[in-house]
Amino acid sequence: MTPPGPALALTMGEPAGIGAEITLAAWTARDGRTPPFFAIDDPERLRRQASALGVAADVREIDDPAQAAACFADALPVLPEPLPVPVVPGSPDPANAPAILSSIRRAVAVALAGRAAGVVTNPIHKRGLQAAGFGHPGHTEFLSELTASRSAPAMMLACPGLRVVPVTVHLPLRAVAGALSRDLIRHHGEVTAAALRKDFGIARPRLAAAALNPHAGEEGMLGREERDIIAPALGDLRAAGIDIAGPLPADTLFHAERRGDFDAVLCMYHDQALIPLKTLDFRHGVNITLGLPIVRTSPDHGTALDIAGQGKADPASLIAALGLAAEIAARRGAAAPATVA
Amino acid sequence: MTPPGPALALTMGEPAGIGAEITLAAWTARDGRTPPFFAIDDPERLRRQASALGVAADVREIDDPAQAAACFADALPVLPEPLPVPVVPGSPDPANAPAILSSIRRAVAVALAGRAAGVVTNPIHKRGLQAAGFGHPGHTEFLSELTASRSAPAMMLACPGLRVVPVTVHLPLRAVAGALSRDLIRHHGEVTAAALRKDFGIARPRLAAAALNPHAGEEGMLGREERDIIAPALGDLRAAGIDIAGPLPADTLFHAERRGDFDAVLCMYHDQALIPLKTLDFRHGVNITLGLPIVRTSPDHGTALDIAGQGKADPASLIAALGLAAEIAARRGAAAPATVA
Repeated sequence: MTPPGPALALTMGEPAGIGAEITLAAWTARDGRTPPFFAIDDPERLRRQASALGVAADVREIDDPAQAAACFADALPVLPEPLPVPVVPGSPDPANAPAILSSIRRAVAVALAGRAAGVVTNPIHKRGLQAAGFGHPGHTEFLSELTASRSAPAMMLACPGLRVVPVTVHLPLRAVAGALSRDLIRHHGEVTAAALRKDFGIARPRLAAAALNPHAGEEGMLGREERDIIAPALGDLRAAGIDIAGPLPADTLFHAERRGDFDAVLCMYHDQALIPLKTLDFRHGVNITLGLPIVRTSPDHGTALDIAGQGKADPASLIAALGLAAEIAARRGAAAPATVA
Repeated sequence: MTPPGPALALTMGEPAGIGAEITLAAWTARDGRTPPFFAIDDPERLRRQASALGVAADVREIDDPAQAAACFADALPVLPEPLPVPVVPGSPDPANAPAILSSIRRAVAVALAGRAAGVVTNPIHKRGLQAAGFGHPGHTEFLSELTASRSAPAMMLACPGLRVVPVTVHLPLRAVAGALSRDLIRHHGEVTAAALRKDFGIARPRLAAAALNPHAGEEGMLGREERDIIAPALGDLRAAGIDIAGPLPADTLFHAERRGDFDAVLCMYHDQALIPLKTLDFRHGVNITLGLPIVRTSPDHGTALDIAGQGKADPASLIAALGLAAEIAARRGAAAPATVA
């Protein structure tokens, strides 16, 4: 589903990671269904990477995102973001952090201006950026700030057949129970239901919420959060017209016969969401930020510093992220005239 | 793999649950590979259940476990354990609790005496038994007491292609981090490695340990248990000659390309172990108690009070539990003469 409008903006991510090689591989693997995209990256380093890996890719500098779609069939369009320091695969250099952040800022700016269909981000190395003064826990919070979003965004992970939304994300496990609240769960349910309608075209989304404790707390014997926090939040959501089941025991929620019952599952913590998703489909998972004014997806893997520059990285998740961003952009574009109210 | 020796003892479990119907179904589905088993149950209630569900099963009372194997092809052998109160499917009656517990005690006793190849337990309803004064968190602790086990047993869940061992089990999630200790993890690693050798016939077992926190704690930024507790415990295990990798991020440990790398995965909490197992194979999971002097398995589902007596229950997990108990019994039997030292 190629959007008729502008191309997608793809950020550089951590240049010492696998971003360059999966970007080149995603372009090389293009076919009629691949949405046009342009990288915001250092053209020279992309050429060096292509040459080192023997990838036949014509890296073409553009100076306006509007040029991307026209040249995409013949060349990988790149809006230049020069790196001050040569890249050593596997070794992030704090001197490159400003260019990494600039790539993200520019991608968001062109998307907000309607000159990109959406933003797809290559993985960043948070620790490397933090050393350079980056104060956000990750991409999502930075994007929320850059887009001046009024309410906190939510993270969805999707693969064919399963969508999960963790209510808490990057927290130590011991902090999870204390971080859950009725408001937080309700907010994630609302954002998820709205995104399923608007971005995924599901008119009447069916949601489920996983329990926090084993056996969903077993009538209170194995924990009280189901009764005290989760069930009341789900009651609020139902009162607002959202179809959500639960809290349900997390271990019996993701098997083949059950997955078709729900369009998305709210999970209470990172691994509760990521274990079933990555167990079922390690290659094609996509991370989607819900609740931003722009479309944003990313592959659901990290920088893979250990294999960077070796040509071993699998572009499947990035390719899926590009495809899903284009689908969402097309739906939002098509829906826009009808949702003036 | 039919053991040459005695039959397996199958307990009654909660009579208001699905135990009777899956017991009848497992017997009805018998073929040349089915290990002979006998139920310790109320013959009259099994006959009534068979009649109500239209199951053609000859329920035959025996008075000695030694009679089971000979009649198994023609009839379901039952060592009588009469219930004082008629069973109402879906409604456990505390008056039946003593018979439920007696069924377990007798199964353990005949197994300890070598008159049963092992014990397979139908699911119990802990809350119902607790109301009748049962003080154990579950089957496993009760069996440990009945067999006078010197050290704490461990629970393994297995399906084709995956074995997981949770280090903590029936705890609220908020209590998990505080319950982990170097000793507890080391103990589970030792028990698991020993069982893989003795019970599963794996000469050089390869283990992995999942991390507690997302991204395995991300270099300490998302939790310290990996560094402070898990890694030292794994160091102890390696020093004892056990091949164990980790702590590894839990979300990337269970996908198809990874599962073959390990014979078992130590997990830090219930859902971390049960989510991947039940996501991958909801029907054939088996619970095996490691570290007991007797063989013990069970189906990995509960009493299913909501569908009891309706003939809807799936006997696949019980059938798998019977098969695995017989395999383990055969290995222990064959290994016994060689392991006098």
